[in-house]
Amino acid sequence: MAMTIVQPTIEAFPGVKVAGVHGGIKKNGKPDVALFVCDEPCVAAGVFTTNKVKAPPVLLNMEHLETHADRIRAIVVNSGCANACTGEQGMENARETARYVAEKLGCAPQQVLVMSTGVIGVQLPMDKLKHGIDLALETLGDDWEAAARAIMTTDTYPKMAQMTAVSGESSLTTVGVAKGAGMIAPNMATLLGVLFTDAAMTPTQAKAALTQTADQTFNSIVVDGDMSTNDTLLLLSTGKGQGSVSTAVAYKLARDIVKDAEGATKFVTLYIRGAASDADAKTIGNTIATSPLVKTAFYGADANWGRIIAAAGRANVAFDPDCARLWMAVGERDGGLNSEATDMPAFDPASDLEKALLLFANGVPTKYEEADAAAIMKANAISVVLECGLGDGESTIYTCDLSHDYVSINADYRS
Amino acid sequence: MAMTIVQPTIEAFPGVKVAGVHGGIKKNGKPDVALFVCDEPCVAAGVFTTNKVKAPPVLLNMEHLETHADRIRAIVVNSGCANACTGEQGMENARETARYVAEKLGCAPQQVLVMSTGVIGVQLPMDKLKHGIDLALETLGDDWEAAARAIMTTDTYPKMAQMTAVSGESSLTTVGVAKGAGMIAPNMATLLGVLFTDAAMTPTQAKAALTQTADQTFNSIVVDGDMSTNDTLLLLSTGKGQGSVSTAVAYKLARDIVKDAEGATKFVTLYIRGAASDADAKTIGNTIATSPLVKTAFYGADANWGRIIAAAGRANVAFDPDCARLWMAVGERDGGLNSEATDMPAFDPASDLEKALLLFANGVPTKYEEADAAAIMKANAISVVLECGLGDGESTIYTCDLSHDYVSINADYRS
Repeated sequence: MAMTIVQPTIEAFPGVKVAGVHGGIKKNGKPDVALFVCDEPCVAAGVFTTNKVKAPPVLLNMEHLETHADRIRAIVVNSGCANACTGEQGMENARETARYVAEKLGCAPQQVLVMSTGVIGVQLPMDKLKHGIDLALETLGDDWEAAARAIMTTDTYPKMAQMTAVSGESSLTTVGVAKGAGMIAPNMATLLGVLFTDAAMTPTQAKAALTQTADQTFNSIVVDGDMSTNDTLLLLSTGKGQGSVSTAVAYKLARDIVKDAEGATKFVTLYIRGAASDADAKTIGNTIATSPLVKTAFYGADANWGRIIAAAGRANVAFDPDCARLWMAVGERDGGLNSEATDMPAFDPASDLEKALLLFANGVPTKYEEADAAAIMKANAISVVLECGLGDGESTIYTCDLSHDYVSINADYRS
Repeated sequence: MAMTIVQPTIEAFPGVKVAGVHGGIKKNGKPDVALFVCDEPCVAAGVFTTNKVKAPPVLLNMEHLETHADRIRAIVVNSGCANACTGEQGMENARETARYVAEKLGCAPQQVLVMSTGVIGVQLPMDKLKHGIDLALETLGDDWEAAARAIMTTDTYPKMAQMTAVSGESSLTTVGVAKGAGMIAPNMATLLGVLFTDAAMTPTQAKAALTQTADQTFNSIVVDGDMSTNDTLLLLSTGKGQGSVSTAVAYKLARDIVKDAEGATKFVTLYIRGAASDADAKTIGNTIATSPLVKTAFYGADANWGRIIAAAGRANVAFDPDCARLWMAVGERDGGLNSEATDMPAFDPASDLEKALLLFANGVPTKYEEADAAAIMKANAISVVLECGLGDGESTIYTCDLSHDYVSINADYRS
């Protein structure tokens, strides 16, 4: 009999030791260097930002995975400095970081991957980073929470998950940590994330599994539409188990990123259905999810659904309000901001639309009660269903509201 | 000798009478119906929202201008209700509005244009609107400020301008009123605006002049990237004067819209230069101008220019940070938020770059003084120059910051 257990913490992951320490990059004394070391060379894959401005660590990882995807030994991550827009010196610093770790571990520099997050346009303080690496090597162990904390920027809590699938004598485990908060856009992972699995796979299989997982999870979340220069999601396989990577861990982490988005007070799931194509559905969903007017209406608990229709209309893909229907519901199925749900909530028209409030149909508002709409908008988890009536295109986007705190956090980020 | 006078008020415009009254659509007692009546049939042109969700008044105006662009007699505008997402009833209400005014004036309904602005998804209260039209007809005169006030939604002051060009015995006058505030996006006028000129023109000439004017002014401003369902800019020509429409009035109004954007505290001019094409330059400028991270950094007076480079990198057009240079300067040339400047500030590399601070060049930050950057960011008018180093493409975009007040205004808009 098969059994799957998903936990919001990680106790240990055989074959991988981790650490999270304060090397001195962050002025506030918080952890800023995380290290993940594999006992044996691992198969690895990465997906990276599609921003044309790619930070040196992104470029370095692409280079290392090109030749050494079958034997990665370590990942070093720093927060507090993105090492982006830093030119040749930034590239040399990323290389030196990998070299420094490789020397300590007795492996090739190409077996080390590097991630950075934080302020753009500042060179890495290499002495502090190396000091952090030294400290991390001394404290390597099973404290995954420390590692998850060390990669945080404006995140308010560490993001991690573990999934174990047991079937008879065999079991498969996937663990992951991630950071998000701002610059979360639809078109890439837009974050730092590290997944480890003991499912055996080739580099090609790892890349395929990671790409598919990212599309369903990290690439379906929207905070503000900005896209980072440093987005990196890595998957490392330590093992020889049979089976594939579950998306449950990635979904939990992606969901945490929206829950903990800068200033977020509401978790909004947008189910776009009946668009001319899946791509159109995703474009409509992303346009709605990045609309400041839609996001502030959610923050204000104002059922100003006209803004959703107006956003769909400017998405620059096929959309006809006369064919469209719009519902809203309390998003209780996955429990909102305070839930620990880890399953991806698939859209179920029968049960979902039954309890949902139809606000707009065939070009005109329905005769709904304003109080009913207001009650839904007050929930901390809201589902929006937009049936376009044009075809079979579908997409589900997870997003959040735009609050005063988002403005405060981002107005003062560097100070 | 030629002389041009631009004024922020309108004393009178021969051949056109106006009024602004409270018909009862707005619950707060503020003016909500504006009427513009021409003594004689006028040549007219319109540019409209490119949103796929077009409000009935937009559709009606397109229809009326198709056949009656050489004989428009009146424009009626209501605020407090957008008459958008209102289906057949909404279309019938727009038609009835035009019919009602036409009957009073003794002309065909197709000689009347209609504009609505306000909340989406609510049917027009026709009794109140007709009451407003009755009142407006009784008070027709030269009170352009009353008309400008009656079209306001979240605008904090009425927007109007008059330009008179005198050359010897002859003179040309252009006047205009507009409203903006939110939902201001790059791809259309995204507002309501009415321009009158006494320059003689055919309908074709009027359309060409209006399109060109809109591109240089109203289509180059960005508040939040949202695009309204009701955007309409109209040009009416009453006269037989020789000459063409000046963009000065439209620029003044467009600039007022950015100055008075919801919650705006800073006026930002983005000069994108050296892009692969003009279209690329506009895309880069619009991506920067709609980035919440860039806009909140301006609000916080944080010289976090890395966000500008990151936004350019995700604009999905050619961009290479290694070829790019970024300057910032206090935008004193056109005086910032409190200026009454009406000239479009053309970019002058010699004088503009001399006083600007170079922050980023060839892929790396320059060795500028943080205090110098901070001083620029504290100004209420800021110029940003991004030289892409790729070609001859240019675009200038006017935008503003994203403040706590923007969130407050839009979270509570309907209440």
